[in-house]
Amino acid sequence: MNILNPKQIENESMRIISDIIGDYIGPAENLPIIKRVIHATADFDFLNTLYFSDNAVNKARETLKNGADIVTDTLMLSAGISKNYGVKIHCYVADDDVKEEAQARNTTRSIINIEHAAKNFSTAIYAIGNAPTALIRLCELIREGKANPALVIGVPVGFVNVIEAKNMLAALETDTPRIIAHGRKGGTTVACAIINALLYA
Amino acid sequence: MNILNPKQIENESMRIISDIIGDYIGPAENLPIIKRVIHATADFDFLNTLYFSDNAVNKARETLKNGADIVTDTLMLSAGISKNYGVKIHCYVADDDVKEEAQARNTTRSIINIEHAAKNFSTAIYAIGNAPTALIRLCELIREGKANPALVIGVPVGFVNVIEAKNMLAALETDTPRIIAHGRKGGTTVACAIINALLYA
Repeated sequence: MNILNPKQIENESMRIISDIIGDYIGPAENLPIIKRVIHATADFDFLNTLYFSDNAVNKARETLKNGADIVTDTLMLSAGISKNYGVKIHCYVADDDVKEEAQARNTTRSIINIEHAAKNFSTAIYAIGNAPTALIRLCELIREGKANPALVIGVPVGFVNVIEAKNMLAALETDTPRIIAHGRKGGTTVACAIINALLYA
Repeated sequence: MNILNPKQIENESMRIISDIIGDYIGPAENLPIIKRVIHATADFDFLNTLYFSDNAVNKARETLKNGADIVTDTLMLSAGISKNYGVKIHCYVADDDVKEEAQARNTTRSIINIEHAAKNFSTAIYAIGNAPTALIRLCELIREGKANPALVIGVPVGFVNVIEAKNMLAALETDTPRIIAHGRKGGTTVACAIINALLYA
């Protein structure tokens, strides 16, 4: 109750998380990301469900150094990403023309958001914490050569289309760097923790 | 993979969640809130950790009918709350004067945010999904008679001060309506799911 300094709180939290994780045998660069997701969820399931393609973390850090574009599936995720590192965040999901197009085509705003983003920022970092349909559409666009993300963070949460969307991302036969939370769990806080962990040097 | 209608996705998700929950013996008005938290996290632990004070849900729905004020601990939570129900959302955590006061008093911006909110919106709904120090300060202000919330949603997540803060809220000897996620788990998505579930009629 007496620890009030934010840095001190974080250090103590990370110490407890490390203690509980114990020995970790994966690539060293992935561990800070895993720990920050656990810090944001208090859920140690992510120790076993987070998947990183080879060198995804190092490649993403390199991209982010130069003030990358980040596309998100929700404004809530956009709001959570740290604004101190010069990244540019894009989300069209609440735009009037996106709403109209989704209604006209009888599909989700999440899908139209990704289509617009792929046109404008084909090589951005894409972070999807909520909408599995967005992730499915992104995978289709990657397959068709219409998007070539520097990184896909595929961590939607839920019960319908979610595991299918993640499996589709995992199965892409491209060299797209990817981070996936397998299973039903994930969410906006998980996507946010991953991006912020990549930003913190 | 073929379900694209958002309402259909949600109905199917809720059907799966109900199936897994099985028999539920708590007050009927709490169940939609619990289900929406599970929908947002895919984590059935919340079935056992969510605590509702007597009639908290009915009282909160009544308050929200009239376009209540909601105070949040993060801008990410503010961003996630549905804007379709005429609520007014307040969060000062990123304001310059809050930053300055936190530095001058060597404390957290989360605490100063709550102090400012209590002065301006003493009887608001307070939703805390991230910062345990904010919840601790809010409990102190309630004890001192300086805040009288219509509802406290106390669901911070993490490893330091978190369980203590929730226990402090649970132990308040006032008639403050409260919803608590006991244990380490919680988070911004949990707080957001609770508020949005209260808003959905």
